[in-house]
Amino acid sequence: MTIGLPASGPAAPTLQSAWPSANAVASRRPRPLSLRIGFDMQFEIGGPSPTAMLLMLFCHPEVAPQLDRPEQLVIEPQLPVQILGDAFGNRYGRLVAPVGNLRLTYDAVFQCAYEPEPQPEPSSRQHEVAELPADVLPFLLGSRYCEVDRLSAVAWDLFGALPPGGSRVLAINRWVFEHITFGYRLTRPNKTALDTYVERTGVCRDMMHLTISLCRAMNIPARYATGYLGDIDADPDPTPMDFSAFYEVYLDGRWWPMDARHGKARVGRVLMARGRDATDVALVTSFGRHRLTKFTVVTDEIPAPAQSLAMPPAPAPMALSA
Amino acid sequence: MTIGLPASGPAAPTLQSAWPSANAVASRRPRPLSLRIGFDMQFEIGGPSPTAMLLMLFCHPEVAPQLDRPEQLVIEPQLPVQILGDAFGNRYGRLVAPVGNLRLTYDAVFQCAYEPEPQPEPSSRQHEVAELPADVLPFLLGSRYCEVDRLSAVAWDLFGALPPGGSRVLAINRWVFEHITFGYRLTRPNKTALDTYVERTGVCRDMMHLTISLCRAMNIPARYATGYLGDIDADPDPTPMDFSAFYEVYLDGRWWPMDARHGKARVGRVLMARGRDATDVALVTSFGRHRLTKFTVVTDEIPAPAQSLAMPPAPAPMALSA
Amino acid sequence: MTIGLPASGPAAPTLQSAWPSANAVASRRPRPLSLRIGFDMQFEIGGPSPTAMLLMLFCHPEVAPQLDRPEQLVIEPQLPVQILGDAFGNRYGRLVAPVGNLRLTYDAVFQCAYEPEPQPEPSSRQHEVAELPADVLPFLLGSRYCEVDRLSAVAWDLFGALPPGGSRVLAINRWVFEHITFGYRLTRPNKTALDTYVERTGVCRDMMHLTISLCRAMNIPARYATGYLGDIDADPDPTPMDFSAFYEVYLDGRWWPMDARHGKARVGRVLMARGRDATDVALVTSFGRHRLTKFTVVTDEIPAPAQSLAMPPAPAPMALSA
Amino acid sequence: MTIGLPASGPAAPTLQSAWPSANAVASRRPRPLSLRIGFDMQFEIGGPSPTAMLLMLFCHPEVAPQLDRPEQLVIEPQLPVQILGDAFGNRYGRLVAPVGNLRLTYDAVFQCAYEPEPQPEPSSRQHEVAELPADVLPFLLGSRYCEVDRLSAVAWDLFGALPPGGSRVLAINRWVFEHITFGYRLTRPNKTALDTYVERTGVCRDMMHLTISLCRAMNIPARYATGYLGDIDADPDPTPMDFSAFYEVYLDGRWWPMDARHGKARVGRVLMARGRDATDVALVTSFGRHRLTKFTVVTDEIPAPAQSLAMPPAPAPMALSA
Repeated sequence: MTIGLPASGPAAPTLQSAWPSANAVASRRPRPLSLRIGFDMQFEIGGPSPTAMLLMLFCHPEVAPQLDRPEQLVIEPQLPVQILGDAFGNRYGRLVAPVGNLRLTYDAVFQCAYEPEPQPEPSSRQHEVAELPADVLPFLLGSRYCEVDRLSAVAWDLFGALPPGGSRVLAINRWVFEHITFGYRLTRPNKTALDTYVERTGVCRDMMHLTISLCRAMNIPARYATGYLGDIDADPDPTPMDFSAFYEVYLDGRWWPMDARHGKARVGRVLMARGRDATDVALVTSFGRHRLTKFTVVTDEIPAPAQSLAMPPAPAPMALSA
Repeated sequence: MTIGLPASGPAAPTLQSAWPSANAVASRRPRPLSLRIGFDMQFEIGGPSPTAMLLMLFCHPEVAPQLDRPEQLVIEPQLPVQILGDAFGNRYGRLVAPVGNLRLTYDAVFQCAYEPEPQPEPSSRQHEVAELPADVLPFLLGSRYCEVDRLSAVAWDLFGALPPGGSRVLAINRWVFEHITFGYRLTRPNKTALDTYVERTGVCRDMMHLTISLCRAMNIPARYATGYLGDIDADPDPTPMDFSAFYEVYLDGRWWPMDARHGKARVGRVLMARGRDATDVALVTSFGRHRLTKFTVVTDEIPAPAQSLAMPPAPAPMALSA
Repeated sequence: MTIGLPASGPAAPTLQSAWPSANAVASRRPRPLSLRIGFDMQFEIGGPSPTAMLLMLFCHPEVAPQLDRPEQLVIEPQLPVQILGDAFGNRYGRLVAPVGNLRLTYDAVFQCAYEPEPQPEPSSRQHEVAELPADVLPFLLGSRYCEVDRLSAVAWDLFGALPPGGSRVLAINRWVFEHITFGYRLTRPNKTALDTYVERTGVCRDMMHLTISLCRAMNIPARYATGYLGDIDADPDPTPMDFSAFYEVYLDGRWWPMDARHGKARVGRVLMARGRDATDVALVTSFGRHRLTKFTVVTDEIPAPAQSLAMPPAPAPMALSA
Repeated sequence: MTIGLPASGPAAPTLQSAWPSANAVASRRPRPLSLRIGFDMQFEIGGPSPTAMLLMLFCHPEVAPQLDRPEQLVIEPQLPVQILGDAFGNRYGRLVAPVGNLRLTYDAVFQCAYEPEPQPEPSSRQHEVAELPADVLPFLLGSRYCEVDRLSAVAWDLFGALPPGGSRVLAINRWVFEHITFGYRLTRPNKTALDTYVERTGVCRDMMHLTISLCRAMNIPARYATGYLGDIDADPDPTPMDFSAFYEVYLDGRWWPMDARHGKARVGRVLMARGRDATDVALVTSFGRHRLTKFTVVTDEIPAPAQSLAMPPAPAPMALSA
């Protein structure tokens, strides 16, 4: 059985949440980029009872129109899946997995442009709290993994001498990139921004939590995001492909994608979900015993189709097929 | 200048968020209860620049119809206030306070019934995660002051032997009531549920964070709430009147108000705001230097008016007056 | 090269530090027990420079007379080792390991009696702080992994209703034994007593830190200890043999060995070192980069020799041989 | 009743623990300095039972010969006091305080020289661990308030690029002096080095714990110390006189006094006690309920007597008088 989702999401981009369109910022026309994205996840559900699972494994509704066909999350065994939305604009599935093996696979092609994601300038303006849109305000507050209150002194000590706005954001991003050592073995499920700051190590998730906390502590709205990110514009990474965390800051009246692990703008990122921190956008939230037995992610450039970027595929209706 | 809010809020109660109406659960007709509620808060804004402030100081839209006239938040000096709503259904004000003194006062009469708030039974059913309404799911996750993941082992060790549902909720509520010593000096701004569990002390805010975390750790949705609560059905408390934190759990298809500080159902609670934890419903969030110089809260029973509880005051239009 | 240590240690047992002699407490004569003890540890020293190492890998001077011959710590490659003592009466070695492989092996036979180690009674008297020997007082204080101050509320909440002395100690020991789940993957180098209390998991080291902290919080002196402990009086343990942590409490004018992991008195424990907590008695403290590449421990019963327990082997002179 | 202690302590200074004598380092002869030191502490002992108290309120035996007469700790009501020593060379008293008021007063004159305490140079040599005296090694390890292991990454990130030895120590001392804001309200009894690093605030105790932890993390032995310190060489401090924490590092074969709160060498410090951290040298450790009702400390320069610094007062016998 497969679950089909319409390639066009329900939420139209608004001014403050708009993901910059691929060719809005560049004067020259970048070349089209086609990405094959997908995954194969297998679980052993331990029981004794079936377990509910929340799956935040789709492309975000804002970018789903850039998929070349409706999304297909294939579930084995066949199970009914409810598609839900949350207050952050994400789409996720809910199912009840019976005891035994569960396999989730996904395979799609995402169309975008070969160009670095836009970045704020040092001069990008930081808004007064009084003028921020109401839906941006929650991204100033603390959250499970972002102890904004506890990291306030650190933020002001490290970055208080810089001018507000883009300068601070860029300096925070660089500091985390330069001072936090990346390593898959250097994290744990309950690691917080504060832990990351002290231990100087973590995975991308931890690095973003720290960056987000430091931004928020200086009254700069910041939110957590997950997605696909390949090696397209980078040296090949010997570790297995994985999903990637990044974050977004609000400056100059819009959100900007930022990446404290790589320390620079990247090409070919595919947004999946956004939230206050990793709590809100866990790929899989399981409410019973389970064990991940296989996990592979694919994010590969493929030859681009002839079709123009200016013509995203037409929205397809919801399709349920087995 | 005063800011008037319509006494009827914008959000109609829905099935899952409904606050039990005062006379729906009792077969006998309880006597009407009139409460004078209000506060006087004074701040010294330190400067050098004006500071933005978020004020979550109104009655919640769900209960605002029980006020006898439109809400009046009086601000001295006169300042423009923007009224905003958040994703949790709360209403709050935003202003920019100039350097100097700021005074916020509020005075209203709230009509309800003299009866204990309804409480779950030991047999109240806990829903499977798979059947919870989507807007209830976030209240299963961790948040800034509720380290649900870290308190999971404690929750299951203490309460895992009890049957799911009301039994566990009532046992958790009683445990926190009996084991956590209340004291105004026994808290701090960054105290979390985990700290409270270990230190065995705290204020109502801390006690609710702990209870909420233990509930969520056992897959019982729980959310944080603030409001007015007098001494109406209790021995007079020698400490100055204050706002009061409580929490709500989701059982049997509805939310139930609970109070781990008092360990029992109370009479005459007036809801102000709800959220994941205290982060979301701070009475005042200030983004600059300030000092609280006066703080008094009033929650007093007054003689009930002749008018019937069955007839809440008619919604009044937005009123702005100076 | 080997390093020989005299089998008789420098410190004569004193009243308060006396390890109960094997046959002092039993009226019946227990059968003799011979234990083969030893280990094989291999390290890769990463460099670029040689690294100093402290090795707390000998039998404690108090029990060293029960070895059947002088201790031999064999070091490959041959390196000079300095033998030092600390303020707690432990003996340890210091060496400088060159870059490359380092192997430490040890093989000895320890003579004792087949009888459970003595345990306090519920009525065992807890001393007033005013009457404790001065060298016992430090074991009332907090230390790196024992946050006595932070666990004080927990200790009094859980055990305050019991009579002081043996009753409390036995209840604390049982509580930790019953509530903390043992697991090698459930620890980390910086895990403290507080973490263990909250996470309800750990290895023997963590369980002892928690028990020690709870005892000290109730003014009962408690100290950390390490040693060999086989499966002699227990079901065979499928996990590889390891060293074992335990602790000692001071009641009735003497120290008693206790074990919160196994929850009962054991047979055939061989003391290696004592201290405030694991910080003081790390088997190996290295001041440079290294990697443990092999680690095996042996603690096996072997046929007892004809010689009487009453006649410990005569102290041998210091022997250095290659 | 008063307790008299001989002005000459039992422990002769040794190479590694020697407090630099007042005129050993200066070629020119500094002028003599006479300090009146003392305190008045009053407690309410809550009961219901008497409480044992440990009082680390004497001058350290190493400097006690510089007192102009035997020490007098006056206790009201009259109580028997036991004088004890610990493993760090400190002297302390133990008494049992009955329910009611307890007053401890002390008044003495300390003779030293008006000259800054000696400080290490940037070139001061850091010893290899392999060559450190055995009694110095414990001051490389973690302790209750000094999470050396957890602060290791921070230490190397901040100071790893500097040459080992005095350069690092001076840089650490300066960093803490410049980045940690002093404030009496910015501490709490369980505040650790890690908390201080993150919160960027604390009292002298907290600042020393952080400095000590950073030093130890870089294999530089560091120990905590308490004493009297007046305003002699500094601007008058408007806050009430208090005892003062400082620390000592081991470089060039000796211990050097350092002060991260004041960031420079001071004149007229009087050593009281040393240990791993504040746990070991609490001025008063009480094992029952008590409340401090008065606390004043005196450290004032007074006219120097005619007698030469070269002639410390002759040791007096133990004197007990009422």
